[in-house]
Amino acid sequence: MKNEETKQIRNLILDMDGVLWRGDTPMPGLAAFFDTLRELGIGFVLATNNATKTAVQYSAKLAGFGVEIPPGQIVTSAEATAAFLQTQYPPKTAVYAVGEQGLHDALTTHQFHLINYKEAMHENGDIPLVVVGFNRHVTYKDLAAAARLIHRGARFIGTNPDVSFPSEYGPLPGAGASLAFLQAATGIEPLIIGKPGPILFQEAMHRLNGTTANTIMVGDRLNTDIAGAQKAGLKAALVLSGITRPEHLATSTIKPDFIFADITDLANYLQGEKTAVSTHKKS
Amino acid sequence: MKNEETKQIRNLILDMDGVLWRGDTPMPGLAAFFDTLRELGIGFVLATNNATKTAVQYSAKLAGFGVEIPPGQIVTSAEATAAFLQTQYPPKTAVYAVGEQGLHDALTTHQFHLINYKEAMHENGDIPLVVVGFNRHVTYKDLAAAARLIHRGARFIGTNPDVSFPSEYGPLPGAGASLAFLQAATGIEPLIIGKPGPILFQEAMHRLNGTTANTIMVGDRLNTDIAGAQKAGLKAALVLSGITRPEHLATSTIKPDFIFADITDLANYLQGEKTAVSTHKKS
Repeated sequence: MKNEETKQIRNLILDMDGVLWRGDTPMPGLAAFFDTLRELGIGFVLATNNATKTAVQYSAKLAGFGVEIPPGQIVTSAEATAAFLQTQYPPKTAVYAVGEQGLHDALTTHQFHLINYKEAMHENGDIPLVVVGFNRHVTYKDLAAAARLIHRGARFIGTNPDVSFPSEYGPLPGAGASLAFLQAATGIEPLIIGKPGPILFQEAMHRLNGTTANTIMVGDRLNTDIAGAQKAGLKAALVLSGITRPEHLATSTIKPDFIFADITDLANYLQGEKTAVSTHKKS
Repeated sequence: MKNEETKQIRNLILDMDGVLWRGDTPMPGLAAFFDTLRELGIGFVLATNNATKTAVQYSAKLAGFGVEIPPGQIVTSAEATAAFLQTQYPPKTAVYAVGEQGLHDALTTHQFHLINYKEAMHENGDIPLVVVGFNRHVTYKDLAAAARLIHRGARFIGTNPDVSFPSEYGPLPGAGASLAFLQAATGIEPLIIGKPGPILFQEAMHRLNGTTANTIMVGDRLNTDIAGAQKAGLKAALVLSGITRPEHLATSTIKPDFIFADITDLANYLQGEKTAVSTHKKS
């Protein structure tokens, strides 16, 4: 017994960490949640700012939780970066990438030609692109080569803006810190693909073949998932199973369109069993 | 035959690269310049933002050019950092340093206790200081450990703010780029010791036992040497033997108190043989 509101929801863009799992632990009801989406015929794409892993690796992680999701339904910021750039540059375009396997794989899959450090430091021709993502092994040399090419006119692209991420040691520097290093060194601001910018959402929408009227972004972070989706014209649902606590929500100027305790709560809503707290709808 | 103006000059703070040498080439008249200063009884200290070399290494470089200057008359930003911090912390204070030999030597000479990466990542006690300078071998791990300690409350000190420096490959990232990385990752702004801030100048003044009335800063960079010295209350002399071209000077809002072609021109002025173009004096 669905109400009119739920019937409008045809597609979901799902953030992963804090929504589908926490670290290496799946959220309760994870498999049942995807069963519900498939029963209801609701399309979905998984979207993350993390550019270090490939879609194949995420698909394998989900399989380990008993959920089969093909890599084509998983968009990392590295995937979105490569897909976005492919619309603007011919095949075999040379790219200097500072990142991990997720970024390198995404760029080669999208037919870019990766150049190495030596080429980056000695190349006197035209290298049109520098793409920078998180890399826990990044060195001064890697960043110096990137700075050199940016100085020489290469376009400066960042996979995602996250300046830090939680770890067992406390918050550690993220991709955004390397972007700040290069922006300081070159005076050039990067184009950033990931949330809260619109390009990652646009790539997810493209794969869903969805419209802003029938697609909802589901995430656990107010300033990236929720604010970014709303800025991109999407409705946004906050789940309280991740980083955002109810008290943050109360004091934030960012107002989700829907609020759910977790994905089980969302599944119940989609089945028409309850009506979500809808902050925008109510006002 | 000195005029009154030159008689007031009792001390010089001398920037090095672009003033005393260019790369590995001494400026013409280098030895004669120091002979003149000694004949006239003018005190001097050499001061640089470069924190990678030690004062002993600079002294050796000058010896190679036929000029004997003891290390005590050479202040790097690493030396100034260590001397400044020594006035505020007891001996054996623990410091996590991200830098090269110049920084490590300066800190240990000033009785600080350097901790290594492993200690920085696992230390749960109180590490009060993180000091960051240029390091051409810096890695993500080094910076992550620094970020962790800054997050935990360590004071964040930068040796110098230079975001880039010239090289055969073009401009490469300087200490300021690593500071930007850590500022982005932690949200904390560093206290920066080197030019154009006042602390390096203050350390040089301290060694000269000089006053702002009788000491002149001599440098080749408008935005660091000249603007910084003037902000610290010193008069500033620009030499045109380094990075600043006459056309830059014409369009800059920064106005040196004196302008000289090079150190030979300055030596002639100090001997009273000519009157320098004095922009402030004339206005």
